Amino acid sequence: MTTANVSVEQNGAVMRLTAGGADHRFHAVWLRDNALDDATRAPGNGQRLITLGDIPAGTIVADAAVTGDEVAVTFAPEEKAVRFPLTWLQTHSYDQRPARAAGWLADDVQTFDAGLDAGAVTASFEEISLNQSALASWLGDVARYGFARLTDGPVTSGALLKIVDLFGYVRETNYGKWFEVRTEINPSNLAYTSLGLQAHTDNPYRDPAPTLQILYCLENAAEGGDSQVIDGFRAAQRLRDEDPDGFACLAAHCARFEYNGANGVHLLARRPMIELAPDGELIGLRFNNRSAAPITDVPFDEMERYYAAYRRLGEIIDDPAMAVSFKMAPGESFIVDNTRVLHARTGYAGSSGNRWLQGCYADKDGLLSTLSALRAA
Amino acid sequence: MTTANVSVEQNGAVMRLTAGGADHRFHAVWLRDNALDDATRAPGNGQRLITLGDIPAGTIVADAAVTGDEVAVTFAPEEKAVRFPLTWLQTHSYDQRPARAAGWLADDVQTFDAGLDAGAVTASFEEISLNQSALASWLGDVARYGFARLTDGPVTSGALLKIVDLFGYVRETNYGKWFEVRTEINPSNLAYTSLGLQAHTDNPYRDPAPTLQILYCLENAAEGGDSQVIDGFRAAQRLRDEDPDGFACLAAHCARFEYNGANGVHLLARRPMIELAPDGELIGLRFNNRSAAPITDVPFDEMERYYAAYRRLGEIIDDPAMAVSFKMAPGESFIVDNTRVLHARTGYAGSSGNRWLQGCYADKDGLLSTLSALRAA
Repeated sequence: MTTANVSVEQNGAVMRLTAGGADHRFHAVWLRDNALDDATRAPGNGQRLITLGDIPAGTIVADAAVTGDEVAVTFAPEEKAVRFPLTWLQTHSYDQRPARAAGWLADDVQTFDAGLDAGAVTASFEEISLNQSALASWLGDVARYGFARLTDGPVTSGALLKIVDLFGYVRETNYGKWFEVRTEINPSNLAYTSLGLQAHTDNPYRDPAPTLQILYCLENAAEGGDSQVIDGFRAAQRLRDEDPDGFACLAAHCARFEYNGANGVHLLARRPMIELAPDGELIGLRFNNRSAAPITDVPFDEMERYYAAYRRLGEIIDDPAMAVSFKMAPGESFIVDNTRVLHARTGYAGSSGNRWLQGCYADKDGLLSTLSALRAA
Repeated sequence: MTTANVSVEQNGAVMRLTAGGADHRFHAVWLRDNALDDATRAPGNGQRLITLGDIPAGTIVADAAVTGDEVAVTFAPEEKAVRFPLTWLQTHSYDQRPARAAGWLADDVQTFDAGLDAGAVTASFEEISLNQSALASWLGDVARYGFARLTDGPVTSGALLKIVDLFGYVRETNYGKWFEVRTEINPSNLAYTSLGLQAHTDNPYRDPAPTLQILYCLENAAEGGDSQVIDGFRAAQRLRDEDPDGFACLAAHCARFEYNGANGVHLLARRPMIELAPDGELIGLRFNNRSAAPITDVPFDEMERYYAAYRRLGEIIDDPAMAVSFKMAPGESFIVDNTRVLHARTGYAGSSGNRWLQGCYADKDGLLSTLSALRAA
């Protein structure tokens, strides 16, 4: 059992817990707001039953004591007594947070380059459909690498929806519940040609952009048409390490993206190419030469630096050392975290055979929820 | 016709356009990247056919001249000649952008408080279904105010989906394509009780959060159960004007939101309550006492200020001067921009009659696209 001590400081405004060799200070109002008792949190669904306005403004910790594995706390003026497990307090400590450089990543994110063994993030369609632990492992790869593959799926139109059914919900758009990726005569989008496509994230002109994309192969007899994925977080961090000012410049200003290619559709978004949380966590990348609209939100004096960083980011993304390449066979598919991992295809000769993929969008909330629930099961 | 002059400066790195009494400087690389010719932009769908890597690094403007309503520009070393309409250059000028205080809003956003005449943002379900100009007007209200109402809809389960069909696509979630809002015996969410609900945005524990929500009334015979909407942007700007440091503190740190109320569902997001674009545009609000998880991303020394601002923001949101209140009759509905407008309900006496709403989520990209296309038609 842990040796733990609590003391009350600053006339009750702060409680200090010393446990496991570390000090954890908590403000009285924070403790009261996060009380775990049944009058504060609904027992069944865990939702908070009170608002901050229900907590008196001058709330203090009147008394605090370690009792076994818990800390008993009494708040004044409410005269409310509650208990917090010691481990809960340690887990939720906000004292002494480490300083982190802009562009930091969450602990469970692992970046990759061409050295990633694509086989290590590849599972069998049938196995993840039947086996919950295989599904959890595959979803874990998507969460960690932002990319994973499937083999041995049915060569059937619409089969990609069965993948989404395993973890979440399709994001339907003007492209439909899913869309055909093959050569068209009058393409509404360059994706529907045999042109090579520079690595990109999809639909940056949409806000919110879809956070997941699946591409599923039904036919691939053409010469060329290989698939590539590039970790945009790795690329952004390379830029940061080479040129911190350029990285900061791309993050500090909004780009614009636009799609106006079909009747009745006009999509427009104003978002940065490199998106940081307020505390500098790297949380998103938008990169798409086809739909990049004129950038008009960068001050004149910074535009040169902005374009230099934009150019360098593109060079890093185009660097063969970054790309995981593969050619999909019918029944194979891959999924990317579209806020992070770019995908590309090499051009192909339409005359040499057919290439037919289907694509769809989905969102990470459902995937991460399913993953969390599977891990907890 | 406009009197216009162009000159080339800094050895071709910059072109200066003087037109309509204003100076507009453009960098050579920016002009080349945004060339409008058929080799740069695909004629049919307008997508860019080249990448920044296709543009030589040392690109300069070798020559520029006004010819009629256009500016003819020749780039070196490509020796590429293109033309830009004068009006296009003026529209896309990035020279001399105004400085704006954090929390600024896009020009087409208009904030509201209790003084908003709800009737002015109310349309007939049948009219917007049949009349494109009525639809454009109603969608324009959603874009401008983040809130609009409909009357005279069918009193039929699932009718709310017909509203979404008019402009976009449902965002399906673990709650379904749509969900029932009525008193349940073992509620997985406090929304499914007769409790009053403090004004909130929905699903802040989801990332991306749904950007639109529709609530549709099928039965409302209970005493109480009134609906309220509050403009979160107005509330955030009130906080900013009263307490700029508190506003900045809420924007500078991530809150956490969590939902763990049903089997197989565990949703968690780390996002700020007040979301700003990198250049300070106010673009989102997340506020929900029920699903607010312990805030652990605020440094100890700022937690007191953070909680004071959080409390004050809640007081502003609860201020009756902020709320537009109404009681929905069967067949009536409302839509909110869930990134901006909070909604609340007063408690009701379940014994006094039934209250039955249906809700669904959708996204703004489709709505704004439809609105833009209708306006252009």
